[in-house]
Formats: sequence, C-alpha cells, structure tokens
Amino acid sequence: MCECCPVSSRLSVGVNVSLAKGKQSSGGIVGLSLSSQPGPHPHLPCSLIMSSAGSDAGDGGLGAPQTKTPGEKASGPVSADGSGWTRASCPCCAGGPVEPLVLLQLRAGLPRETKDWVITLIATAVKQGGAGLSAHPGEEPSGDIIVVSAPRCTLLRAAEELGLCKPYRTGDMTAFSYHDRSNFRDADDVQVFLTLAERQYIVKYELEGLRAQRDLKIPGLPEGRLLQRRDNIWQKLKAVGVVQGMFPLNDEDKLKALSDCWYSGNQLTQPLDKIHAYFGGTVAFYFSFLEFYTWSLLPPAILGLILTVFSGSVNKEAMDSISDSKVAAGDDDDDQTVSGHMIQAVFSMLWSTVVIEMWKRRSTLLAYRWGTMQLAERFSEPRPAYHGALGVNPVTGRVEPLFPAWQRELRMALVSVPAVGLFLGLVVMGMLGFYWGEAQAQSLHAEWDSLLSSVVLYLPSVAHIVYTNALGTAYRQVALALTEFENHREESAYNDHLTGKILVFTFFNYFAVLFHIAFYKQDLPLLRKRLASLLIITQLVNQVTEVVIPFLVDRFLSAPKRKEKKEDPQEDKFRNQSSLPDFPGLFSEYIELLVQFGYFSLFSCVYPLTAVLLLVNNLTEIRSDAYKMCKLFKKPFSAPVAGMGVWQTAFEVLSFVSVISNCWLLLLSPRLQELGQESGVTGTNVVLVAVLMEHLLIMIKMVLAKLIPDEPDWIRVKREQNEFISMQALGQQKQ
Amino acid sequence: MCECCPVSSRLSVGVNVSLAKGKQSSGGIVGLSLSSQPGPHPHLPCSLIMSSAGSDAGDGGLGAPQTKTPGEKASGPVSADGSGWTRASCPCCAGGPVEPLVLLQLRAGLPRETKDWVITLIATAVKQGGAGLSAHPGEEPSGDIIVVSAPRCTLLRAAEELGLCKPYRTGDMTAFSYHDRSNFRDADDVQVFLTLAERQYIVKYELEGLRAQRDLKIPGLPEGRLLQRRDNIWQKLKAVGVVQGMFPLNDEDKLKALSDCWYSGNQLTQPLDKIHAYFGGTVAFYFSFLEFYTWSLLPPAILGLILTVFSGSVNKEAMDSISDSKVAAGDDDDDQTVSGHMIQAVFSMLWSTVVIEMWKRRSTLLAYRWGTMQLAERFSEPRPAYHGALGVNPVTGRVEPLFPAWQRELRMALVSVPAVGLFLGLVVMGMLGFYWGEAQAQSLHAEWDSLLSSVVLYLPSVAHIVYTNALGTAYRQVALALTEFENHREESAYNDHLTGKILVFTFFNYFAVLFHIAFYKQDLPLLRKRLASLLIITQLVNQVTEVVIPFLVDRFLSAPKRKEKKEDPQEDKFRNQSSLPDFPGLFSEYIELLVQFGYFSLFSCVYPLTAVLLLVNNLTEIRSDAYKMCKLFKKPFSAPVAGMGVWQTAFEVLSFVSVISNCWLLLLSPRLQELGQESGVTGTNVVLVAVLMEHLLIMIKMVLAKLIPDEPDWIRVKREQNEFISMQALGQQKQ
Repeated sequence: MCECCPVSSRLSVGVNVSLAKGKQSSGGIVGLSLSSQPGPHPHLPCSLIMSSAGSDAGDGGLGAPQTKTPGEKASGPVSADGSGWTRASCPCCAGGPVEPLVLLQLRAGLPRETKDWVITLIATAVKQGGAGLSAHPGEEPSGDIIVVSAPRCTLLRAAEELGLCKPYRTGDMTAFSYHDRSNFRDADDVQVFLTLAERQYIVKYELEGLRAQRDLKIPGLPEGRLLQRRDNIWQKLKAVGVVQGMFPLNDEDKLKALSDCWYSGNQLTQPLDKIHAYFGGTVAFYFSFLEFYTWSLLPPAILGLILTVFSGSVNKEAMDSISDSKVAAGDDDDDQTVSGHMIQAVFSMLWSTVVIEMWKRRSTLLAYRWGTMQLAERFSEPRPAYHGALGVNPVTGRVEPLFPAWQRELRMALVSVPAVGLFLGLVVMGMLGFYWGEAQAQSLHAEWDSLLSSVVLYLPSVAHIVYTNALGTAYRQVALALTEFENHREESAYNDHLTGKILVFTFFNYFAVLFHIAFYKQDLPLLRKRLASLLIITQLVNQVTEVVIPFLVDRFLSAPKRKEKKEDPQEDKFRNQSSLPDFPGLFSEYIELLVQFGYFSLFSCVYPLTAVLLLVNNLTEIRSDAYKMCKLFKKPFSAPVAGMGVWQTAFEVLSFVSVISNCWLLLLSPRLQELGQESGVTGTNVVLVAVLMEHLLIMIKMVLAKLIPDEPDWIRVKREQNEFISMQALGQQKQ
Repeated sequence: MCECCPVSSRLSVGVNVSLAKGKQSSGGIVGLSLSSQPGPHPHLPCSLIMSSAGSDAGDGGLGAPQTKTPGEKASGPVSADGSGWTRASCPCCAGGPVEPLVLLQLRAGLPRETKDWVITLIATAVKQGGAGLSAHPGEEPSGDIIVVSAPRCTLLRAAEELGLCKPYRTGDMTAFSYHDRSNFRDADDVQVFLTLAERQYIVKYELEGLRAQRDLKIPGLPEGRLLQRRDNIWQKLKAVGVVQGMFPLNDEDKLKALSDCWYSGNQLTQPLDKIHAYFGGTVAFYFSFLEFYTWSLLPPAILGLILTVFSGSVNKEAMDSISDSKVAAGDDDDDQTVSGHMIQAVFSMLWSTVVIEMWKRRSTLLAYRWGTMQLAERFSEPRPAYHGALGVNPVTGRVEPLFPAWQRELRMALVSVPAVGLFLGLVVMGMLGFYWGEAQAQSLHAEWDSLLSSVVLYLPSVAHIVYTNALGTAYRQVALALTEFENHREESAYNDHLTGKILVFTFFNYFAVLFHIAFYKQDLPLLRKRLASLLIITQLVNQVTEVVIPFLVDRFLSAPKRKEKKEDPQEDKFRNQSSLPDFPGLFSEYIELLVQFGYFSLFSCVYPLTAVLLLVNNLTEIRSDAYKMCKLFKKPFSAPVAGMGVWQTAFEVLSFVSVISNCWLLLLSPRLQELGQESGVTGTNVVLVAVLMEHLLIMIKMVLAKLIPDEPDWIRVKREQNEFISMQALGQQKQ
C-alpha cells in the first residue's frame, strides 16, 4: 500500500469482495486476504490473495468509477479506459485510463488457475509480495497472453529505486525521490514524467524481481513445482515454461512519429531524445555513438582524399589491391608516399584519442540529459539469477543473497581467464593450422597436378571456416556459462562481463590474420589487399544479412499473415507484434563498429581511403539500423544506462593499441627501410628510433587524454552541487 | 553566535559591557556593537566590536565563574584556567579551562591599539566577521605575542566544514555534523574528539579565512593600509608585517610520551596514531609511508644478498665500483650474472607495482582510520590567496572569488608547461656543456700539461655545480610564481602543483646524468660505479645535513639560551619554542625517498645490493627524522589529508618508467649482446624481442595494478554504506 493513500488495504479488499459477490461472479479469484476464512485457492499464500480481474469480474465489476463501453467478450477489449484490468493495489492509482505496456506470452493450453494465479501475483501490492502492477487477461480469459500495465505509484517508487534523475523544480536533474515527488516537474503525469521505455523497463524490473515470500506451489502445475522462500518466482515461471516470453508493446502513433523524423526524410541528425524516450538507454546510446563516430570520420576522410589525390601512386596501389595482381607495390613507393604514410599514422593516432575523449564528454552530457548519471543499481535488488547464502546486505541492510567479491574474483582469475585464453589459443592454432594446411595442399597440388588435387586446394579454407564457426558457437556457450558462474550482482556487470568475453574473442578472430600478415609475414601489399577487400565485402555482407534478408522475410513471408486495419481490436495488433522475431541485441552492431574502428586506427596508414569508405557505410548504416529497430523486430527492453559500458573500454583499448601498431607499420614501410640502408643507419638504430617515437607518442596520447576532461564543466558543477546538497542533507537529517 | 545558545549576542555583549564598566576598566576595547553609540575606536567595524581581554580587563573581569589565581602581571599568566583569555563568543563555551593552541608572533613595537584590534578580531564571533576563537595577550599587554585558543563550538563547526569523519554512535567513521553532534562519540570533550593537530589546524584555518566584512582601516598603522570588502585580513596583516609568524604550540607532556614510544626505544613499529594525533595528517602519512616502504625493501634486500652470494663476480664488481679502478667489469660477466640481472630486473618491476598498489590500500585504510576520507575542501572557503571576480559559487551558493577553470588550464598549458620545459632543457644543456667542457679541459691538459692546465681540469665541474645551484634557486622562485599565477582554489591543489613542479625538476637534476650514462654512453660499469657512490655518499651527506648539523647548532648555539625549568612561567616556554627554526617541510624528505626508489627500481639490476643499503639507511632515517620533528624544529601546522597527494603519483610514474628502464638496461647488458652475436641473432631482432618483452611486462603491470583493489573490501562496504545513507537522506529531507 502506498503512503499517499489514506484507505487501508483491508478496506479496499473488503469493497472488492462485496462487489464481486454481489455480481455472483463465479470464475474470478477473490480471496479474503486478511480474514481467516479459507479462500477458493488454499495453496495461495495469504499475501498473494487479492482481487484479480479473472473472467467476468473484469467488465467494470471492480467498482472503479468509469464510463465503460461494454465489451463483446467476457473480459472486454484491452483498451485504455480501464475495463478488464485488475485494480491497482494502491487506491490512489485506481481508476482512470490504463496504458498497456508489456505483453506476456504464456504457454498455450495453460490451466486457467495458473493464469489466474499469475495475474493475481502481478496485481498484488509490492509490500505483500506481488509486483504492484495491473494485468489484463486478454479477451479470452483462458487465452495465452497477459497484458501488463503499471500504476503511477509503482512506477514512481521504482524510478526512485533505480536512481533515475528527473527535472526538479529548479530545472536541474535531480535523483528522483518518491517522498519529495511534488517538487519534481510533471510528476503527476507519469506518461510525461517517465519515458515509455522507462515505464516498460520498470514493468520488467518489477516482474523479474518477484520473490516468494514463503514456500509455495504454483497452482495448476504438476506436483513438485515448489517455490522456496526467497526463490525468484519469475525465473521459475520461465524455467517451467509458464511464461514463454515478455516484450514491451509498441505504440503505433509514437513509432510512426519517431520513424518520420529518424530515417524517412533526409535528416542529417537523429532525434536522439525521442529515440531515448521510445527505445530506451542502451539503444539511444548506440545510435548516439554511431552518429558521433560517423561525423568524426569526416576529418580523416578529407585527409585521406587529399593524400590520395596528391600522391598518384597511392591511387595506383589502391587499384592494385583491388585487382588481383600481386605486384609488390612497395617497390614503386616514392618519398611522398612515405611522408603520406607518416602523416596518416600520426594523424590517426591523435584522432582516435581525441574522438574517444570527446565521446566521453558527449556521453556524460547525454547521461545527464537522460537522467542516468546517478543510477543506483548497486543499491537496488540484485539481478534475478544472482545466488548466494541469504544474509543482510551490509550496505543497504536488506535481506538478500550475498556472494563474497573475493570469491568472484577468484573464479574470474582461475577459471574465466584461463578458459578465455585457451579459446584464443585455439584461434591462433586454427590460423597456423590453416597456413600449414595451405602450404601442404600447394605442394601436393604441384606434385600431382590433377583435378583431385585442385579440389584439395580448397580443403584448408573449408576446414578453417568450419573450425572457426564451431569454435565461435562453442565459445558463446562457454562465455555464457562462465559469466553465469562468476555470479555478478548487477545486471550491468553481468552484461559487461559477458560482452567483454565475446568481444575479445570476436575481435581476436577478426584481427589475428591481419596482425599475422602485418607483423609476422611483414607483407604490406597483402595487408593492403586484405584490408580493402574486408572493408568493401564485409560491409556489404553485413548490410545484406542484417537488413535486406529480414526485410524480405518480413515483407513476403510474415507480413501477409498479419495485415492490420485501423479498426482491428487492440489485442490482434498485440498478437501481430508478438509474431515479429526477437531483437538480436546490439552486440553485432557494436562489434561491427569496433572492427571498423580497428581497421581504421590500426592499419589505416597502409590504405588511406579507409575513412571515406567507412563514412559512406555508416551514413547508410544509421538509416538501415533505424529501420530495422522500428519495423523488423519486436521492441526490445532497454535498461537505463549511463553510457556504452564495456564498449567504451574496448574502443579506448583499441585506440591505445593503434599507437603501437602504427609505429611498427611505419617501421616496416619498405621505403623507410631502404632510406635507412641508403643513409647507412643500421637496422638496430632504426628500431631504437621507432621505440623512442612510440614511447613519445604514447606519452602524448596519455597527456592528451588527461587534458581533455571527461565531463563538460557545467555538468561537473551540477554534479558537485548534488554532492554538496546530499552532504548537507546527511548532516541535517541525522539525529 | 551558535545555535545551541539561547542567549543572543546582544545580551552577552550587554553583560560584558556592564561588567567592564562596573570595574572601571580603562584600557580594554569595549564596544557596544549593536547600539548606535560610538565606541572608543570609531574606525573599528561594528561587527568587529566585542569584549576583548586587553590590559587589566583580563584578570577575571569577564565574569566567567572561575577559581582564579591572581596573576603577578597585568593580564595574568597564560595558564589553562581561563584567566586573561577573551571570552568565547559563544556563551556555551565560555568559562572552564582554556588550552593554548597557537602562538602569534607580532612585530616588536607594534602600537597597542593594533594588537588590541587583532585580539578583538580573533575573539569576535564568526557570524560577525571574526574568527570565533579565544586570545590571550601574553603577560605584557603590549608584548609581541598573542596566544590563541579555540572554543568548542568553533572547533566542532570547523570540523564539519572541513569534512572530518569521526566515530559515530554505531562505531563507523561518519562525516561529522554539528547538528547531529550528540550522536558522535566523545563530541562533548573536544580534547578527545579532535586531535591536537586538528585543533591547531582549525585555529590556523579560521584565522587565515578572515575576510573584511566591509572596507576598513587597521588602527595604529599609517594611513593607506585599507582593507577592502572581502579582502583577506590575515594576508594583509602578514603583508604589512603586523603578524610575523604563527606556529602551533607544543604540549611538553604529550611530546615526551610520543618521543618515548617513537624513537627512544628499540621499537620496530612507529606509534602512527599518536603521530597523527600530535603532528597531523601530512606528517603521519610521511612516516607511515616511510615505514611501509622500508619494510617492503626486505624481500629485494634478501634477493640481492642471495644473488650476490651465489654469483661471486657481482661481489667483485661491487668492489670494483667502489674502488677507482676503471676495469670494464662487463668483460668478466658470466652467464650466472646475466640471469641474475634478469631475475633482479623482472623482480624489481613486479615488486614496485605490488608495493605501490599495496601502499594505496594501506593509505586508504589510514585515511579511513584518521577520518579524512571525505574531506570537503572543495566545498569550504577557497585558500586565502585565491583571487578572482566576486560571485556566487554555483555549487555551495556562497559569495566568494570565482576563477574559471579553463583559464587556469590555459595558464598551465601556455605558461607553466613551457616554463618548466625550458628549465628542464637548461638542465640538459648544463649537462652537455659540462661534458663538452670536460673534454675540452682534458685535451687542453694533454696539450699543455702544466699546473695551470691541471687547475683548468676542475673548472668544468665547478662551473657545473655553480650553474646547477643557480638554476635550482631560480627555478624554485619561478615555480612559486607560476603556481601562484595558476590561482588554485584549494590549498591541496596549490601544494600538489607546486610540489609537482619542483619535484619534476629535482628528479631530472638527479637522474639526467644517470640516464645519460646508461642509455647514451651505454657504459654500464660507470653507471654501476656512480650508483654505488651516490647511494653511499648522498645518504651520508643527507643524514649529516639534515640531522647532525641542526642537532649541533641546537645543542651548542641555541639551547644554552633557552634553558627551561619546570617552574618557568608558561609564556617563557612558548617564547623558547618560537626561537626554534621553522620546520623546513617534508619536501626534502619525500624527494630523498623518491630518489632512493628511483635508484632502486630504475637501475637496481646493475647493482643488486642497492636494497640492502637502502634498508639500512631507512631504518636510521625513521629515527633521525622523528628526532628532528620532535626536538629540532618548531612544530609545523599539518592539514588533514587523505594521502600523500602528488607524491603518490610520482612514485607510480617512477614504477612505470622502471619497466622501460630495466628492459633496456637488460638489453644493453654486454653478456646478452655477446650471446646474441654468438648465436647469430641480428641486433635488430634482439631489439624487437626486447620491445615485445617490454610491452608484455607493461601489460602485466597494468593488469596487476588493476587486480589489486585500491581499498580493502571492508572499507569499500563502509564507503558504500555512507553513500547509501546519504542518498536516502537526500530523498527524505527534501520537500
């Protein structure tokens, strides 16, 4: 029950009961939670018994004052006027229009009592062990969906728990406090106060946080499905297959408005705030970074064009590298190219540092604007799958599973790190095996020179591709298991560690061959060729597999099945949404950017047109990704986040490695080595000069990174203001 | 006036006035601050007029209930029973014993009215523009000292302003809040609650924070000595020479107890908490680090001894290096030595990382124990010399000088960095000039071979020493001016930047020659010789100049003049203390450690006994420094600090550079180069392997530094607890 409501829970239950009884409802679960009289479902815990809108109790029977249009079917259409919905557990939120936020997909043919139990669970107040939300059973009371909404009080309380910042009376972004809600702008109207994505995430957060208050049995399921005290209910429901899926519902009007100003026109910028409001933090940060990074490619693209125009030979090299002629391009390099290489290398080192540092500033600014600078994840409930001995959290004083940090670190150091290392070793072994196999096949072919032997020529490549794919699939499973084993408390930590593991592997997979060519074989022309083909081919392949194929599938296979009309009932539209494929996550999008960035910053000095190609690619990428988000997939849940998380680190590490890589590539430049030999400088001294240069450049880079502050000045002031106020509040409040 | 006191300032002034008038006091400055009647000193601002204990008004005339022993002289001895002291501006602190904390040394022959004005200023309540302290004019009302103490309320309020943490009811260290003082342990007894060093620092803090409430003239001084509104009064008083000095008074009994358990016995550990209580944060952190570092030298010392014993040749080398024979010791290196070098190099790299990381943990622990983890310097008043346009601080909302951060950064980037670079260049030029001069002198001597020419041989050395010293002196002035020009807001930022500047220069001065020998001349035997002589000679010289000379001066020149007896009046003891020389600061102590650490971690692989020598030196250093602190100098003021500040960074940077240095020293090892030539590996490849090794070791070092958390787990929990409580307080308090 919420503080704001003078009516006690007892009273409201009483009213429900009498009304329901008055209507002679037969199927609805109506328990007398606080009386000792046994309810119709004796296995339900007292704390979970409250009014639910099962069957015909739904059509207005809950006594909320509403202007109801009588539904054709039992529980009425899932409309916004409140009919058919369970009553909010908090009286002050009861009544008024209800916004459908999330759709639960249940197992088909689930016993009615199980569905009712789930609905009751969703609708029960948080204090009594429920989720404090509103549920609608759909038009068919025994159907396989539940539509979930959230009353105002639950949303606001969760917003405080998550540590969201919202505009205060003074206009500053301040951590929201339920107690102080009257001083926040628009706190009365949650649809304005919280974004759609935030409201939907809160529904997920509340559902996934459900824990059994005591041992109980899920009704309608075979025996043995017992929930023990403090077990996570939602995990159990998913594990036994009661809940098949859960996704946030699209708001057609808003989606239309968003797509109009996002990818339909000729806009150069994206409506980032709208994206954040509709799709949430993770998605908004991805698109913000994509845009920022794309525009920051402009200077190196211009430089690349200038260098290409001014040194004709580079042009020729580019031609060489695309055509198959294996002319050692190094021989006709002239002085101009060497200096061009050097300009390019030094420029791209400084450029990558400045871009990453400026992005940090931009990221902080966005986090401030979107109210995610002070997320309180570590103070809120641990993520559902977190396990450990029950105990009192020393920080918050709440009872929750505890797992010592040193044990997690031990597991990471002794299990995860060696396992990841093993797989990286397997990648290298695969690569070496491929080279060995190719050499064997070549010599075999030269010996035999038959049709059979020319088939054998393809064997190593095929074997390598199969090996790599199998390894990748196996690794993904291992990474998942390892991260689960590490038992992170926060969702974000879990995600970061999982992403980090896969990221390292994928990156290694992409770049091992290039590094091998560049530094072991020291074959710059081959590197140049590889780079050009990778840049052009992989980009094309990506665009096709990511957008064109889903588009075609959607257009010709799925869409005809779910033709929508304006006047279709709401529920059919929801069902249509559930037939869209799940959003595959942003991992592949980010890794694409990272690999691009890697190509560019690590090896760009051998192929100056890289930036131009990337710029063109990214401009289309923004639109195709946006289209994909809006049209081709289910809307994903998106947690409020303060930045890109582990991806930020990945880009930083890459920009660091790029200094080293560029220095050594320059050193390998054949022209430079010739020059050295001509002027009589020994190889050792050339290397020593390169080492000196490298150390100097790394130092410059570190100083540069230090000099560019990570947050704009005015945000620092706001942050310090908050700290000061909070320090003062602490002093005042205690006593 | 303080909140806790129901009596208004008007009332208390009224009482003072009537009492003073009743006693027909003639000399005391008694103003009627709130009446419109003109006081005896019309140039005093209203807000600064209150009762003071000038002249004979002191001997009990202020009506505090006390058992007074009548003083022989006018204002009574400076004893602890409260006689002669100004009345505390806050009634709840009036009466009771007063503890003399700080001695102000005034200009001899200062007009009486000026001294009285200063006393009034000190004794006026903070709200009325005074320092809120208590003052005693000494036995001679017109004498040149003022003894200052602080009433409880002022101390506690300042403790909150500084952000000191103190043990809460629950036992946790919590940021002190005046409002909530009843919940802190021992908050009633400030002598227990705040350490002596903290109380004395607060007196300094209050005095130096004095700002004129409006334009005023200091009485008794020639015309033109005007203070403008918001001018810092204390700075002005120092500038015009009214205040000559200020130092905290020693407490003989405590000092005796401290020295007994610090350096008199055979203790292996120092009484760090007692040192912190008596001498304050900066001093305590220095001695903590010294102790920690000394004991951490034990493993490398043992390793060094083992290596020396097992490879006889190293022993021989050490002999060589001390004797003057210039045998190229590299020739008789055997395999064992090379592997010894490598063990030593890798070990010292890892060792330096682990030691620095472990020290960070220890430092955090000490900061927690000493309540300085949450210092609020940036929220309190800016340091006295900070200037800028008056404005409202956006964070705290107080009126104070503002100076934009970007302007400071601009000044640092465009003025400070080039200036420091210039001086470093001058150091290098001096070194090169010295080598050039020496070569010239040698050839001249070879040509002439006369007495004159053998004198010429010494010329370059003499010139270089003169040049270096002149440069050092000039640089110190420049660094001071530059740091002042950068206009830092916080005292700690100012200190860090000043120390940092001098530190870089000093370090460069020490190590330029060694680096030159090691990497340019590549003369390892010479490096070894230099290192050994530096280690032995500079340590000896340091000990002599730092301790023996001051000790002798004190013993034979100063001490006879200030023979003390138990029954001497307190004031004479104070005067004796003021005759001690000023404490020169910890800079030279820290730089000594840093240079040691540099010798060891940068070059130790060429001279394995370094650690043993350092260990022996440091064990005596602890005692001699402690003796010096306690006996030979005035007690210094010591701000509460959370760590070593910029020195921490310096040690970290050094431990980073050591990886690079060691790698290249190994590479230069003649035996390794021979080995390479024997096995037919080209020089270039050897260098490449070294580069690879270096990068690998740096990576290991970075991972290691990341893996060792900077704070112990339980302190992290405490910190998060505080954050959580403060977040909750913020939510609760607003409305």
